Amino acid sequence: MPSVRSFVAVCLLGLLSIAVRADEGMWLFNQPPRELLKDRYGFDLTDAWLAKAQRASIRFNNGASGSFVSPDGLCVTNHHVGADSLQKLSTKEKNFYQDGFYAKSRDQELKCPDLELNVLDSIEEVTKEIQGAVEASMSAQEADLARRAIIAKLTKESLAKTGLRSDVVTLYNGGQYHLYRYKKYTDVRLVMAPEHAIAFFGGDTDNFEYPRYDLDICFFRVYEDGKPAKTPNYFAWSKTGPAEGDLVFVSGHPGTTNRLETFELLRHRRDFVLPYTLRLLRHREALLRQFAEKGPTQQRLAEEDLYSVANSRKALTGQYQGLLDPAILKTKQSMEAPLRATWERTGKDLGGKTNPWDRISASLENRARYETLYYLLERGDAFDSRLFRIARTLVRAADELPKDDGKRLPEFKSAGLESLKFQLFSPAPLSRELERMKLAGSLSLVAEVLSAEEPRVLKALAGASPAKRAAALVDGSKLNDVSERRRLFDGGKKAIDESTDPMIVLARLVDADARAVREKWDQDQEVSKQAFADITRLMFAQKGNDVPPDATFTLRLAYGVVKGYEEDGRKLPFTTTLGGAFERAEELNNREPFNMPKRWLDGRSKLDLKTPFNFVSTADTIGGNSGSPVLNRQGELVGINFDRNRHGLVRNFVYTEEQARHVSVHSRAVLEALRSLYDANELILELTGK
Amino acid sequence: MPSVRSFVAVCLLGLLSIAVRADEGMWLFNQPPRELLKDRYGFDLTDAWLAKAQRASIRFNNGASGSFVSPDGLCVTNHHVGADSLQKLSTKEKNFYQDGFYAKSRDQELKCPDLELNVLDSIEEVTKEIQGAVEASMSAQEADLARRAIIAKLTKESLAKTGLRSDVVTLYNGGQYHLYRYKKYTDVRLVMAPEHAIAFFGGDTDNFEYPRYDLDICFFRVYEDGKPAKTPNYFAWSKTGPAEGDLVFVSGHPGTTNRLETFELLRHRRDFVLPYTLRLLRHREALLRQFAEKGPTQQRLAEEDLYSVANSRKALTGQYQGLLDPAILKTKQSMEAPLRATWERTGKDLGGKTNPWDRISASLENRARYETLYYLLERGDAFDSRLFRIARTLVRAADELPKDDGKRLPEFKSAGLESLKFQLFSPAPLSRELERMKLAGSLSLVAEVLSAEEPRVLKALAGASPAKRAAALVDGSKLNDVSERRRLFDGGKKAIDESTDPMIVLARLVDADARAVREKWDQDQEVSKQAFADITRLMFAQKGNDVPPDATFTLRLAYGVVKGYEEDGRKLPFTTTLGGAFERAEELNNREPFNMPKRWLDGRSKLDLKTPFNFVSTADTIGGNSGSPVLNRQGELVGINFDRNRHGLVRNFVYTEEQARHVSVHSRAVLEALRSLYDANELILELTGK
Repeated sequence: MPSVRSFVAVCLLGLLSIAVRADEGMWLFNQPPRELLKDRYGFDLTDAWLAKAQRASIRFNNGASGSFVSPDGLCVTNHHVGADSLQKLSTKEKNFYQDGFYAKSRDQELKCPDLELNVLDSIEEVTKEIQGAVEASMSAQEADLARRAIIAKLTKESLAKTGLRSDVVTLYNGGQYHLYRYKKYTDVRLVMAPEHAIAFFGGDTDNFEYPRYDLDICFFRVYEDGKPAKTPNYFAWSKTGPAEGDLVFVSGHPGTTNRLETFELLRHRRDFVLPYTLRLLRHREALLRQFAEKGPTQQRLAEEDLYSVANSRKALTGQYQGLLDPAILKTKQSMEAPLRATWERTGKDLGGKTNPWDRISASLENRARYETLYYLLERGDAFDSRLFRIARTLVRAADELPKDDGKRLPEFKSAGLESLKFQLFSPAPLSRELERMKLAGSLSLVAEVLSAEEPRVLKALAGASPAKRAAALVDGSKLNDVSERRRLFDGGKKAIDESTDPMIVLARLVDADARAVREKWDQDQEVSKQAFADITRLMFAQKGNDVPPDATFTLRLAYGVVKGYEEDGRKLPFTTTLGGAFERAEELNNREPFNMPKRWLDGRSKLDLKTPFNFVSTADTIGGNSGSPVLNRQGELVGINFDRNRHGLVRNFVYTEEQARHVSVHSRAVLEALRSLYDANELILELTGK
Repeated sequence: MPSVRSFVAVCLLGLLSIAVRADEGMWLFNQPPRELLKDRYGFDLTDAWLAKAQRASIRFNNGASGSFVSPDGLCVTNHHVGADSLQKLSTKEKNFYQDGFYAKSRDQELKCPDLELNVLDSIEEVTKEIQGAVEASMSAQEADLARRAIIAKLTKESLAKTGLRSDVVTLYNGGQYHLYRYKKYTDVRLVMAPEHAIAFFGGDTDNFEYPRYDLDICFFRVYEDGKPAKTPNYFAWSKTGPAEGDLVFVSGHPGTTNRLETFELLRHRRDFVLPYTLRLLRHREALLRQFAEKGPTQQRLAEEDLYSVANSRKALTGQYQGLLDPAILKTKQSMEAPLRATWERTGKDLGGKTNPWDRISASLENRARYETLYYLLERGDAFDSRLFRIARTLVRAADELPKDDGKRLPEFKSAGLESLKFQLFSPAPLSRELERMKLAGSLSLVAEVLSAEEPRVLKALAGASPAKRAAALVDGSKLNDVSERRRLFDGGKKAIDESTDPMIVLARLVDADARAVREKWDQDQEVSKQAFADITRLMFAQKGNDVPPDATFTLRLAYGVVKGYEEDGRKLPFTTTLGGAFERAEELNNREPFNMPKRWLDGRSKLDLKTPFNFVSTADTIGGNSGSPVLNRQGELVGINFDRNRHGLVRNFVYTEEQARHVSVHSRAVLEALRSLYDANELILELTGK
């Protein structure tokens, strides 16, 4: 049956055909789409299948996904997900990010300085407890504090009882609350990564495009007590991979979608959030590119940031273009009408409140007054520096930790403290040269966005130019030394107050302003959450429980069909081949970013060039799904998701499946490359269980 | 004697030494710095020297400079100045921009489609006539019209009398007016260009840096009546080039400086003009880069735009950083104080007007209300498309040409009509793919900068997304056909009104809004010009005539000394060598933009590697000086200016000479490369007169 949304999508694409079904949905593991799968694909989603998928799926805490692929803690994800660790493990002499890495034996595996992996253990519905703690008579401020307190209490109790990392997840923008418990791994070691040139073949040019030819994979292994962890739940590696028309599943951690946002929220996103963010990203990109071009060292230092910024810029440009298409917002408005009508009929029963859409619009009007400041000061866009983030964490920890758990800023609540310290005390190296450039750039951006005479800008610049100020802050700080961070953290308020470290001084200087604007933000978010609780109730009453919530960087199950599509009259096949990569490289004269690594050029004759390389399916994914396992009906791993095509860029707002696809590395391509080019027999044996 | 400004500069740089002199100044040819040169350098600037320099210097109408270097119309400029023509002459098969060009004989020289060169014939002071036409009792609108009318009259009479292109130049922001008469060349042919890789060796990375290794040269020849023009005034090519400590001159066309702007104007530049412009440039740069990476064809189509945008972005970033240094604006303020005091004492004598600084501030306050719209609609930032610019010219020509000369928009006044038609009917090829991308990008930027629901944005988008709208406009337009442009131009108002060409329709649609905002702009500019007339009178009364006016893209003479400087404790020599280029390429692994052309790699052993390649001097230059001849005391050409270093980026506001330098190609390097690598004996013979 065509859903409203898929129909809309079809209209948007200007197609005349009627969609017969849509594979939309990033489904909760505790509310899986059993009936849909049974009806459409005759597939029985058993508890056992689901339980294994849950425990074999991994959240990468730097914002992505992965999975176990052996009983001995071996995990696979994308090269671009491993990039942060590859970069931190690299030195002037050894650039693992560019040149790749392979540990032939376990003692050669390299420990990542600050990579935390989470595996979902259980989900508990806590909507009643949390909504019950907030009373109708409370002001937004009181309600926000009450909500914060009950969340701190629930997570603290859960941690004490189970020893597991415990997070409360806000679903439906405030319509539901679930408590997620995770097993945590912090000893994660690098096993294998291919060269950047083949992992990201086609670079920024082909990013969000298809056909593709990327070996975007990276293997890690989790350790416990110094030994490889036992991971009995893992995905068997498929030696055949998927065929056209196959049903496949993606089990991963989609980051953010905005499909259930109201019309006014999307409009605000179009008119404020995206223009601001695109401006920020283009500013950073220009600076990073200029820095990276200075020489090989700067190239190595900047490349991960540069990838991430260019990737976001491209994704958000696509989103913005989507929202500039009048059809999308018009449709959103018309979808809201029936719910609004229901409210008008029944709203009185819900307590006689103003309708929730107007409450959200009112909170947006508030937000518009301070939103830029919030991003600059509190989110830290003004201080793009790892040293500053460390300084702020230290300054705030000194204020927050002495408070009752329920009254702390959420990121300091006791249930999350261990993960926070793991990041804070990370020994990952830090480049002062890169820090200076980024901080000078962001200080300059504040002046551009606000005004060079805005009091907060003047305060941050302290009478100097951005470049001079950044140099003084970065060169004068000792926070690159982990023991100094520990000393300040352990020394509490007194140590912080006495510190003359310029970064600590800056973090102290701007903290009151930042906290003030955050308080406003939190209160307006609280208004929005309460309104969404009402909207969600209405939506469930009208449509039943089969609308999955927007993505929240928590585990979700998506499903779809492996199939090609048409573009500009050209039929794109569901899969590319290894041979196709060589052809594309030649077509573009082997120029960056279409230069194959030497290993590939030399080893071409050893490869079976007909091996499928990348493939596409209709399953519903978004940023955060990078590295997600793609599974077949048997629960075998047939691919590793690494991208979606440009037609999928509006997926934040609407799901479409006529042309939108996610792109994965084919499981056979991995085996073929490991065998014929990387001489990685140990790894193949572990993957194939022989 | 240290001038106020040079002293300031020294303070800004935090240096303790006192400057003993400063080589500041882009001097007018009719107000040359004879005494300064005599006092400081014992140099007699004779009338003969000056007259030859004037007639051998060339203005490139695409915004740069050059000079004659043989009696047969041979000219030299920069590769990046010739780039526009190189790109327009290139085809899918022959990429002259990338691969270079050499015409061994005259019949192989290639005619540029729309390059116009101007040579200054004479200057006439017309301040009295122009200021006399504006009466104190007139409103800003009346004054603007009166000024426009007298300028149209003077230029028309001059053209009729002399047959020469006649322009009125506004100096001192309105303090003086001179009439410039130019001999015009429109048959300009390409003679020689080296490969882009060596012309722009180091690319964006080394742009505005030193040491440098760029063969940034390009040779053209002007023709008259189908034959090489006779150019008896030309610069002899120096076979030795300059030595350290030599006095040199730069005779060229600096574009814009802002040194005489008021404090409030600079503040407005910092808080509005530069942030807006940087946002625009970064937006364009990201799109162009993405486009260029698609493949070799797109690379060729986009590279000239990309160079120009990246170059501006880097230059303006430097300017913005300069204005963010509180010292610069503070100094400006204190420099203004004595002039203000004089006004307070004597202002009454000048007619009892409000003081000019306050009048400028008031006009700025006005401007701030519509300035973004002015840039988007009237300057055309919203419609970044050659087809649109053609359409607008046609639409406006139909309205303007029937009017009296004095009442037309200045760009349509009869004295300039021939040059306007030369551009309008240019047969230069036009890529619809590039046009679509640029127009879609700029339509999208308007929404970002204003709002997606701003009525003028909605009007321009006509209910479609930017991409769809741009595609419809570009693909539907027939204005790529020169005969269609002629038909519409000749058909006048009726032809334009009847046209259904979508670009013409768009240009008609936005014209009323664009004209309205331009009218406001022109009136506020008029207020500013009148105020600057007062400020200039005060300044001359106080300091005498030895303050040269800000740059106006007209011929100026600068002088300076060839010398190295220190940077971060490193002593940089006054010159680099050809061998240094090879070393730098190796140091950076021959990766773009440090890849030498094959010709250079193969021919290395043939070169005298000790030959000086680029050199620096203290002479006062700015953008627009690109391609300027650098001359010695004898008036021989010792170099071709092509860049300034990053310390020179604040030259828009202050001149400094401690580290700021302009960078030139050494005359010996050109001869050595032509002889040993390019097999260009005919050209060498012509240059050396043998």
